[in-house]
Amino acid sequence: MKTYKKIAIAAFAAVSIVACKPKGTKNVVSGDAAEKVYVAPGQHDEVYNFVSGGFNGQISVVGLPSGRTLKIVPVFSVHPENGYGFSEETKPMLETSHGFVPWDDQHHLSLSQTNGEIDGRYLFANANNTPRVAKIDLKSFKTTEILEIPNSAGNHSSPFLTENTEYVVAGTRFAVPADGDGDVPIESFKENFKGYLSFIGIDKEDGKMDITFQIEAPGFNFDLSHAGKGKSHGWFFFSCYNSEQANTLLEVNASQNEKDFIMAVNWKKAEEYLKAGKAKKMAVEYAHNTYDETTHMAKSEILKEVSVLSAKELKDIAYLIPCPKSPHGCDIDPTGEYIIGSGKLAALIPVFSFDKLMKAIKDKKFAGEFDGIPILKYEDVLHGEVQKPGLGPLHTEFDGKGNAYTSMFVSSEIVKWDIKTLKVLDRQPTFYSTGHLMVVGGDTKKPYGKYLVAYNKITKDRYLPTGPELAQSAQLFDITGDKMKLLLDFPTIGEPHYAQAGPAELFTKNQVKFFKLEENKHPYVTKGEGESKVVREGNKVHVYMTSIRSHFSPDNIEGVKVGDEVYFHVTNLEQDWDVPHGFAIKGAQNAELLIMPGETCTLKWVPLKPGMYPMYCTDFCSALHQEMSGYVRVSPAGSNTPLIFSLNNKKDNAQSPVKEAETKN
Amino acid sequence: MKTYKKIAIAAFAAVSIVACKPKGTKNVVSGDAAEKVYVAPGQHDEVYNFVSGGFNGQISVVGLPSGRTLKIVPVFSVHPENGYGFSEETKPMLETSHGFVPWDDQHHLSLSQTNGEIDGRYLFANANNTPRVAKIDLKSFKTTEILEIPNSAGNHSSPFLTENTEYVVAGTRFAVPADGDGDVPIESFKENFKGYLSFIGIDKEDGKMDITFQIEAPGFNFDLSHAGKGKSHGWFFFSCYNSEQANTLLEVNASQNEKDFIMAVNWKKAEEYLKAGKAKKMAVEYAHNTYDETTHMAKSEILKEVSVLSAKELKDIAYLIPCPKSPHGCDIDPTGEYIIGSGKLAALIPVFSFDKLMKAIKDKKFAGEFDGIPILKYEDVLHGEVQKPGLGPLHTEFDGKGNAYTSMFVSSEIVKWDIKTLKVLDRQPTFYSTGHLMVVGGDTKKPYGKYLVAYNKITKDRYLPTGPELAQSAQLFDITGDKMKLLLDFPTIGEPHYAQAGPAELFTKNQVKFFKLEENKHPYVTKGEGESKVVREGNKVHVYMTSIRSHFSPDNIEGVKVGDEVYFHVTNLEQDWDVPHGFAIKGAQNAELLIMPGETCTLKWVPLKPGMYPMYCTDFCSALHQEMSGYVRVSPAGSNTPLIFSLNNKKDNAQSPVKEAETKN
Repeated sequence: MKTYKKIAIAAFAAVSIVACKPKGTKNVVSGDAAEKVYVAPGQHDEVYNFVSGGFNGQISVVGLPSGRTLKIVPVFSVHPENGYGFSEETKPMLETSHGFVPWDDQHHLSLSQTNGEIDGRYLFANANNTPRVAKIDLKSFKTTEILEIPNSAGNHSSPFLTENTEYVVAGTRFAVPADGDGDVPIESFKENFKGYLSFIGIDKEDGKMDITFQIEAPGFNFDLSHAGKGKSHGWFFFSCYNSEQANTLLEVNASQNEKDFIMAVNWKKAEEYLKAGKAKKMAVEYAHNTYDETTHMAKSEILKEVSVLSAKELKDIAYLIPCPKSPHGCDIDPTGEYIIGSGKLAALIPVFSFDKLMKAIKDKKFAGEFDGIPILKYEDVLHGEVQKPGLGPLHTEFDGKGNAYTSMFVSSEIVKWDIKTLKVLDRQPTFYSTGHLMVVGGDTKKPYGKYLVAYNKITKDRYLPTGPELAQSAQLFDITGDKMKLLLDFPTIGEPHYAQAGPAELFTKNQVKFFKLEENKHPYVTKGEGESKVVREGNKVHVYMTSIRSHFSPDNIEGVKVGDEVYFHVTNLEQDWDVPHGFAIKGAQNAELLIMPGETCTLKWVPLKPGMYPMYCTDFCSALHQEMSGYVRVSPAGSNTPLIFSLNNKKDNAQSPVKEAETKN
Repeated sequence: MKTYKKIAIAAFAAVSIVACKPKGTKNVVSGDAAEKVYVAPGQHDEVYNFVSGGFNGQISVVGLPSGRTLKIVPVFSVHPENGYGFSEETKPMLETSHGFVPWDDQHHLSLSQTNGEIDGRYLFANANNTPRVAKIDLKSFKTTEILEIPNSAGNHSSPFLTENTEYVVAGTRFAVPADGDGDVPIESFKENFKGYLSFIGIDKEDGKMDITFQIEAPGFNFDLSHAGKGKSHGWFFFSCYNSEQANTLLEVNASQNEKDFIMAVNWKKAEEYLKAGKAKKMAVEYAHNTYDETTHMAKSEILKEVSVLSAKELKDIAYLIPCPKSPHGCDIDPTGEYIIGSGKLAALIPVFSFDKLMKAIKDKKFAGEFDGIPILKYEDVLHGEVQKPGLGPLHTEFDGKGNAYTSMFVSSEIVKWDIKTLKVLDRQPTFYSTGHLMVVGGDTKKPYGKYLVAYNKITKDRYLPTGPELAQSAQLFDITGDKMKLLLDFPTIGEPHYAQAGPAELFTKNQVKFFKLEENKHPYVTKGEGESKVVREGNKVHVYMTSIRSHFSPDNIEGVKVGDEVYFHVTNLEQDWDVPHGFAIKGAQNAELLIMPGETCTLKWVPLKPGMYPMYCTDFCSALHQEMSGYVRVSPAGSNTPLIFSLNNKKDNAQSPVKEAETKN
């Protein structure tokens, strides 16, 4: 048995043991922890914490220090709570090159930055399974754009961004043949499988995403990444494992090499090559979905081409830094000088120096090449190693005071160390098996600090049990002192894969509280009850409906036929904060609607049987909410029941007049 | 303008004003509130709080006093987090008589009771829009049964239950014509629209649900209900509004009458009539879906008949108690003597006496009839009225010490009063517009007391803002003293419509931590890696797959063709708590799987394009989780790529052998 294999299996065994035998819960909590995390009724949290949902495809907005989930923002998954992915307006957001995908796996988040600091405009999120990047508008907390990534699979090293949000990157975690060339034997891996790194340009004005270029790289598994900062602005760093290029039983076969790589990419140089026409155009298909907050509608289009630069041919855009062992996290300190590669099977943490990297590249001191990419010498670019940091280092963030904090998956702890001296300063146990950790603003040039959150993979006995399936969990630490202090355990929604956070004022300043009705440009908007109506166009029935406390107009409709396509276009006429109305109709195969003030949402319904179908408001909106209801009578296809509706204008009509619907075509 | 209409409009205006102008947040919090709600890391909450999700169709499990959401249990909605409603095993749970419905509106919960006390076995939940009742097994926290309710619409007065869980009831909120007779003019409301009350029998042994009988009642809107307790066991009480039988603009037209009704139903008498053959059999169609925790599979069947008793014909099964005004909540005190009807437009709270009710019925002292149902005289059955309780009384619960607590929607407060003397003892503001409230065990014969939670309809400025759409909110009160003390605000998942709670030990004693692999009777289970295989049956490809840290077997498959139906039957071989594995494959239109130890789940995939499709574990399961992946090669339909797979048995095969798949048929 090879030594490497033994190590890999030993590591596996160690993990199994840790995972199976949770530690005791003797962690000492400082007496004032309760006061430190308590946010009294009427008071607000200090920090917005945006937390990935992992396998639920959503994002949670959590307040710190209370740990309360303030909102779930649906991004890559349908969301029955508000009809996202079910309403006609939002369905296009989940279209892909292979059709509608109701779910994805959401791993990482990046808050947009200006000058390396959080600017509060956007939140970017990746989808792992169907490779995509989404943008959430932090004025409305709505997902407003989703861009699919061609030539990619397992979009894991994403959506990390540059210090002025010039680019959001997306690197393939699973090496794959290029799109359209995938029907090849798996054993032809080394020949046919590649790694593609996508650089998504972000429009400075309107924030629109566009794949400016891709870089074709060797067939590694690109795992995580971070952009350079300050002096290293212009560079991007990607960790990669499976430099063995194994294609089966990776837990053994991709754990053979003592060192894999961090790939340093000079994206400014890549831009030059792009301008110089060095990119090849590849025919691909990928969806670009955008949501317009004026029409309140999304649209999806399929794009057909991408520009690809070859790292093999263009020698000075990519370099490989050897990194022990199966590197996972790849983090850059606030100064931009230090590059931390966390090898999940490594017994130390290497810290690389950007200055040394530049010198070695300038001096062309290479140890060789991998598939045409120059390999640097480990010692030449190393600042130093953190010795005995713990087992299973995964991710590092920073407090801006010269300290780094690394999560240890296998030994379940957070380790604080000095970036320059590389000395371990403190270690605190976590419960259990921490993946990502986060310091507030901890991947920016100017961290806010104060709090650190560990996002844990195993929950076990931390909360009242809920059967075999448990919520995942986070732990809040106070990092203001020399020693970290555990303050609070809080369960999370979905898998809290990664998170970012910033002080509240960054995100409150530009928020919208409701949509202005006069600005609503939805094609089926109804701006007043007097305009509400029903229009038949062939077998399509368009209901121009309004909702306002506490009635719909129209509230009764007769003459809908089995097989009709009925579209309820419901406009919420309210013009105040936090007065949503809901809409549901019995018999709908679709989900409900949750309509914000000033917004129009559409529910499509194809009735299958004749009958009487009540509809009602699903959001308790007023004392007479229970009265906010109506009926739709459905007659058999071909029957002659006339299409009529009651026109409800409360001021004038205690008994609503009945009108005949318009018929077009 | 009629007086009634003026009152209704004034009430509407009052609500609007309250809703639009949130109060300040000067509520004083006792200094020890932080300590009272703080649950230190490693400690557990005291109480399980099961909270309705409202328009998200789910249930949240919340720990009290911390207010932390411990788990989301999907019930009536697809749940991308764990594949509920997407996996082949769980899809049948969301089937209805009109097909698959991916969402519903979940309003009320009832914990199963024995002798009027919570027994910790089951949690029942209603669906409003497609009328259904679900049962959650509190051993596994899984939804194991869903029963559709025919002849119903807006299943709101549901799923309240009797003191030994003999019946769970479900009353129609919207009067409707009987199923199959619905294609009638809406203006024929008084003639054709009825209210049906369903009594769902619960099997004493296995908990199976069955509609034992329905009662056909007048076409009111049945809103809420509660069973009698102790002396009143054998009776059920339903509030009903719209005794005007209006059918348009209900906020005005259903707010005309000074009094509507509480309908008292003698269900033991109804049982006698049922036995005596007095029920008519009605032809209907409704789904009955059951999930088997041994096969880990759900099935759905359509039932075709229901037994209906006529309250009009069988005079002594139902009686009408006049109740001011538009009654909403209908609550029974722990002794079973007092029936509280909360008229949402009433300026007082009437408390009725069960003893007086029995006497009036015995004496046949009736004020008349409504559609054949005897009407009692208000004064004859009244214990007394709570005067000036606040505006908009909605719901009442009890602490077992003679106190009642009523939520006031319009005046945003909780009012504590003495059940016997009817004197108001305390009132505390809520923020804002409370709907339901809950005392721990507060609708049982022996309330646990200690905590009260107000579930609020308006959130507004209580938390850091999140754009136009805000989380809904709850507020925790300490009710151990004479005066209630507000301890904590906590946001909720979905709309916290109603909730129930009990001390932790009731729910921890019987829980399952993982499923035993040897008991797994799934038809496609794979109980060891050696049994993993791929079988082609025509265009169906069945993958018998295993997952264990940190690999799938098989991990590579070739020879799948475009248009094949590929079924990944993934068995999680782990046998320990909290070691789930996930499964996702690029290109899947379905959601992922989240597979608990010992469980088998199936993802169906119809590949649309040739290509290389990585699959991976979506739940970070070990240090080598990132290596838990594989590939499926898809070739064009009709190509001759052979169907082969790698058989991964880590102990023996560092390089997996490749096998040819079996072919059947």
